[in-house]
Parts: sequence; C-alpha cells; structure tokens
Amino acid sequence: MLLRNAKIVTIEDQDSYGLIECGAIAIKDGLIDWVGADEAIPAAYLDGPARDLEGRLITPALIDCHTHVVHGGDRAVEFEMRLKGASYEEVARAGGGIVSTVKATREASIEDLMTSALPRVDALLAEGVSVIEVKSGYGLDRETELNMLRAARKIADHRNVRIKTTFLGAHAVPVEYKDNPDDYIDDVCIPTLKAAHTEGLVDAVDGFCEGIAFNTDQIRRVFDVARALGIPVKLHAEQLSNIGGTKLAAEYGAISVDHIEYATEEDAIAMAKSGSVAVLLPGAFYTLHETQLPPIDAFRKHGVPMAIATDCNPGSSPLASILLTMNMSCTLFRLTPEEALVGATAHAARALGLSDTGRIKVGLRADLAIWNAKHPAELAYRIGFNPLFERIVGGESTAA
Amino acid sequence: MLLRNAKIVTIEDQDSYGLIECGAIAIKDGLIDWVGADEAIPAAYLDGPARDLEGRLITPALIDCHTHVVHGGDRAVEFEMRLKGASYEEVARAGGGIVSTVKATREASIEDLMTSALPRVDALLAEGVSVIEVKSGYGLDRETELNMLRAARKIADHRNVRIKTTFLGAHAVPVEYKDNPDDYIDDVCIPTLKAAHTEGLVDAVDGFCEGIAFNTDQIRRVFDVARALGIPVKLHAEQLSNIGGTKLAAEYGAISVDHIEYATEEDAIAMAKSGSVAVLLPGAFYTLHETQLPPIDAFRKHGVPMAIATDCNPGSSPLASILLTMNMSCTLFRLTPEEALVGATAHAARALGLSDTGRIKVGLRADLAIWNAKHPAELAYRIGFNPLFERIVGGESTAA
Ligand SMILES: [Zn+2]
Ligand SMILES: [Zn+2]
Repeated sequence: MLLRNAKIVTIEDQDSYGLIECGAIAIKDGLIDWVGADEAIPAAYLDGPARDLEGRLITPALIDCHTHVVHGGDRAVEFEMRLKGASYEEVARAGGGIVSTVKATREASIEDLMTSALPRVDALLAEGVSVIEVKSGYGLDRETELNMLRAARKIADHRNVRIKTTFLGAHAVPVEYKDNPDDYIDDVCIPTLKAAHTEGLVDAVDGFCEGIAFNTDQIRRVFDVARALGIPVKLHAEQLSNIGGTKLAAEYGAISVDHIEYATEEDAIAMAKSGSVAVLLPGAFYTLHETQLPPIDAFRKHGVPMAIATDCNPGSSPLASILLTMNMSCTLFRLTPEEALVGATAHAARALGLSDTGRIKVGLRADLAIWNAKHPAELAYRIGFNPLFERIVGGESTAA
Repeated sequence: MLLRNAKIVTIEDQDSYGLIECGAIAIKDGLIDWVGADEAIPAAYLDGPARDLEGRLITPALIDCHTHVVHGGDRAVEFEMRLKGASYEEVARAGGGIVSTVKATREASIEDLMTSALPRVDALLAEGVSVIEVKSGYGLDRETELNMLRAARKIADHRNVRIKTTFLGAHAVPVEYKDNPDDYIDDVCIPTLKAAHTEGLVDAVDGFCEGIAFNTDQIRRVFDVARALGIPVKLHAEQLSNIGGTKLAAEYGAISVDHIEYATEEDAIAMAKSGSVAVLLPGAFYTLHETQLPPIDAFRKHGVPMAIATDCNPGSSPLASILLTMNMSCTLFRLTPEEALVGATAHAARALGLSDTGRIKVGLRADLAIWNAKHPAELAYRIGFNPLFERIVGGESTAA
C-alpha cells in the first residue's frame, strides 16, 4: 500500500520534524517499506494500490507513555467538594483521596477494570495514539495489583492498540500498612512483583519516590528485584520536592524519570549519562496548580530526551487527551511544538524501551497518524480540537 | 416523545443543578412539555413513544456565548515562532499577529469563511452545544465585516445549531487607520454596523475596550448607534487593565461584559444593577499566561450571573471545547462544577439575551445534552474527555 501526496513528519533523527513537503510512504507486511519524496517513488511501488492523501499531514502515530487509565471509580464528587471549599481533612473523612480509588479498584473485577478503561482508551485512539502505557498501583494488594495488569493487557484484545504494562506496586502506602511502609514493600510489593513477572505481566517497574510515598531506600529494594529479574525501571520522582529519586533512577539505568519538576541540573546530567528519558506531565502540573517548572533548559543543554504524557489518572490528572498534553507542554512548560510532537512520538517510544515505532523510517512499524492539517505546529497550537483524519497501527487503518 | 429513567439537571432556578435523581422529560413540537420524577409521569405521556435512558445524565444543551469561530487562516506558525524565542517585533515583521488574521479573512470568500469554521463548530456540537455566538471583527472593512456575519449565519444552513451574530467592528484598529482610530470608528465601523443591521445580520453589538484597542469614548459612539437601532450591547473589557469599559457597558445596560479579569468590586456592583452577565474566558487567560483572576467573589456577593465561553479565536484562545472551558473555569478560576455548568447553559443563554433555552423547564425549547455520566460534576472534572451520548436541539436528536 502506498500513501501519496502527503506532508510527512518523519522525526528521522529522533529530534526534529524531518519534514518531507510532498512525500509518500510504502507499507508492506505492517512495516514501513519505503519513505521519501512523492516524485521519487520507486517504480515497483507504483504498480500496487495507492491512496492520494491530498496534501494531508502524516506523523508517526502518537504514544502515551505514562498513564493510569486502569482504575476503579472516579473523583468527580471530590473535585466538587474541594471547589466548594472542603479541606483535605473533610475530603479524607468523606472517604476521598487515593483511598477512594484504591477501594473502588479493589471492588472491581478484571472485566470491570478493563471495561471502565475503554472510554479513556478510545479518547486516546481517536487522537491517533498507537501505544499506551498502563500502570498498576491502585490495588496495593497482591490480587488487585495483578488484576490491574491483567485488565490492562486485555485492552489489546478489544482495540487495535499496543499496551505496555508497568508494575507500580510502590505507588502509595495502603492504609493497612500506614505505619509500616517497609513491611508493605517487603511483604506485599516485592512478592507481587515477582508473581506478576512470573505471569508475564511486567514490561517495566515503577515507583513513586516522594515524601508522601516512598523513600529512596524503599525504592532501591524494589529496583534491586527488578534488576535481578531483568526488567527495566522508571520512576515518579521530584514532583513535589527533591529527595534524590532521579539520581537513584539514573543509577539503575532507568528508561525514564517522570514528573521531575524539582530536578536539578545535576539530576539532568545524571539522566543524560544513564540515557534516561525525562517524561513531562503537564496535566498534573495544571491540575495541582504547581508553579515549579521542570528544568527544561538543563535537559536541552545536556541532551536529555523529553517525552510528554497524559498521566491520565483519577486524582491529579484526569486528562485523556494527548493533543491537549502537547498544547499544555508548550503553553505551560514552554516546549516548542516540535519538541512536543517529538515528545509524544520518538521520545515517548524510547521512554517505553521501544525501538520499532515512534518515527517514520524504513523497517519500523507502520504506526501512523494522518491529520487534516497543513503544518505540524497545528497539533500543539489548537486547544481541545482534534484534526485526526485516520489512524494506522501496524499497517491497519482505522478511520477517525 | 418521552425520555425516561434519567438523572436530570434542570437548573430551574437559574443558579443550581436542580437535580431530579430519576426523572423524565416529555417533548412536544420541539418544546419541553413536561419534566418531573419518573414515577410521576402523567398518564397521557405513557401512551406515546418513550426511550429508556438507563440512568444517563441529561443537562440543558451547552451554549458557547462568546466565539470568533469565523475567521481566515490560523496562527500555528506564529505560535511556533514565539516558542522558538521570536520577539513580538519579529513575529510582526513576519506578518504575524492579528494583522495576519485580518489579511487571511479579507482574502476569503463567504463560502471559505463558513467552510473553514465548520470543523470548529463540529467540535462544539460533538460536546452537546446547541447555540453558538459568532462575532465579526477580523474584517475591519465594510465588506469583510459583512461577509463574516453572512458566513456565520450560513452555518445554520449546514448544521442543526442556532447561531447568534455579534457585530464587533470595534475589535482592533486596522493598519490603514493606525494613526486615526477615531476616523475608523466614524467612517468604517459605524456605517458598517448600520449596513449590517439593515441586512438583518446583527443580534448584538460588541467592542474591545482596552489600551491596545479602543477607549471608552470611541466605544460610546458605537454603543450610541446600537442603542438608536435598538440592538443590545456587550463588551470585551478589563482584560489586560482597567480603563472603565465595564462601567460604560453597565451604563448602556449591556447583556454581558466579557473577560473582566481587572474588574473591581465597584464594577461588579454596576453590573449587578444593569443585569449584565459576566462572561469568563479562561482559554485566553490560560494561553496568555495571565495571573490576574476575575473578581469571582464580588460577582457571587453581588449576584452577578457568571457565564463561561471558549472565546474560540486564532490568536489568544484557539480553544474549541466548551467542556474543557468548564474544567479551566474550575481549575484556573476556582468556579465550582455547578457554577461552570450553569455558566455554560442558563447564564450563557442570558448573556445572549435568550430566554427560551439553557434550562429544562416546561415551555422552553427541547435543547438537551445526554451524557454517559453519573454525576454532573464529571463534566467539569475530566480534562480532554467527551462523555456525550446524544445531543437534542429543538427536539431533534443527533447521536454523538
Ligand atoms: Zn503517574
Ligand atoms: Zn473575544
């Protein structure tokens, strides 16, 4: 299949648009077989089926590399209580906060968890997303953590999307271990990680390293097990303060370090050395009214690749739009539209350890998004507007 | 037609949800014929056709009461230039800013203007919008101002939506009158307003009262003509500074005063007396990185109704989502989800001088939005997610 007469954003060098003004892409067996100028299409492809895209824009399909789309319940009523003036204590007394999500998640079946995630997944697919990372972390007990990962994997049975699952047992201290977080790590988190790995459910291991969650010693114990099992690690770090999570993650060669508003230039240097991707999550920054910007200039200076993601979760970022995430990255974090697009494609792939997608290059998967747009900057410029024309995943097309 | 087994947000008193937990609505001749508890449906309706909504949420259809959806071109490349570090002068030298939109709008035909607005209109309709206000103001010459209003009116020939047109000749000083803004008002703006009115194109008259646009004396001259013609007025005021626009608008009994981040409590009192609606535009606040919040508490204290709108425009608010506007109103302006929903329905209707829509009440138009949601707070809580199930406008249904 040949896609002709399109403006193509290849991101070939992993860092910039790599624009082909009037180009074509040949797809064979779900892979990109050829890409180049429309006028230079090799004769062999001209005999097969071809589609004229009438000048539309083609980019790599988008990738959401950090989500919590699988979870029970929602926090709409809590959102309302807070805006009506309720204090955190009043919300907590009414059963709100992460505790309410853990409760709802524990009460849900695998089927419930999968079904309730689908509308959020569909919102992302409608924006040209081909890969979604999904974390556990609202079960905080063995069976529910496993069920979250099982539900995440089941999404791919119902939609044409690749799901990457991340074990996030070290997300929060469950109430029953409130005074013994170390016991939670040793008696629940680590055995559950091992069980999930045995079941083949773990593509990466994550943690939340923060004053309100786990310290570096606790995260280190989880990472040691991940290392022994041969699973790559990533970390929620430096979101609200700097307690050394980024340096720890870099020490373990993390594929990504996420949030990192409070990371320092030293942290950026450590990430550059370890080859870790900085995953920026402007939805949480926006929702929590944060003011501390991530050290973007340090990332640029030291060549740390920046990815962006929705962080889609029921509490601090109920955001289900990767296009809006691109706009927020520009408006709130001052990324350029080019950095935002590379961050939602090539660098997002890298944050998931994927080397077969995220760019338009011979041999990679034919994961493409076709847009009713003239210039790639339009994707980040508009707010709450979706110009998708068509999504192609593994060579298979879904009309928008 | 009977809609049964739904949770209904009536907003009957114009100020709060007015929830019916399990209710029904009877529609006849495009109007709401009856509304009440499902168990209290009068026998007469039980014989006709009925639909079970399975507990879904029904709200009044949403209303976008302040937009510039009709315009030529876009400003994506300028957005990119700025984020790459270009100064305002460099952008201007490259032909950017409002000048570029005026140029593109002048070059477009009525058909072009209508066609290019449709994707933005469709994005709003997909979120359950039934009424869209559309302003002129990028022509700044007689023919193009008229063409913008003609294009806006034509939208209703192609979509099931009500369009309210607002003449905004006093939007900006065109380059050719750069040194003679008074001449622009007297020689172009006012004669064009009269011509547009003669053609039946003007539902309201608006202006931009600001240091970078027009002063109160100039706006007063336009408002005097509107008053003589019997057309209601509204005003972009106090967005970037306070130069007295709100008081002027109140003096003329404006149906709304819009933006008003820099309005004072005194301004709020004047608005309360004149019955003017405060139209809050968080999309522009977000895009321009503003920090001055509108005086929400003063509006609450003095009973000034607050509406919200996208301000959908190519420069300071390329926002085409009223749901996201609701979220931004809560997150950025600290409205409650209830205020946000009332602001996008009942008060938005009032900002347009409409008394036949915006609430669910016997005798009003059957303009309804049906949502896959359990609680009305969900609409403002989620970010970049559209749970619309169905839109009903004037009794006519469009599946989402
Ligand atoms: Zn997260
Ligand atoms: Zn405006």
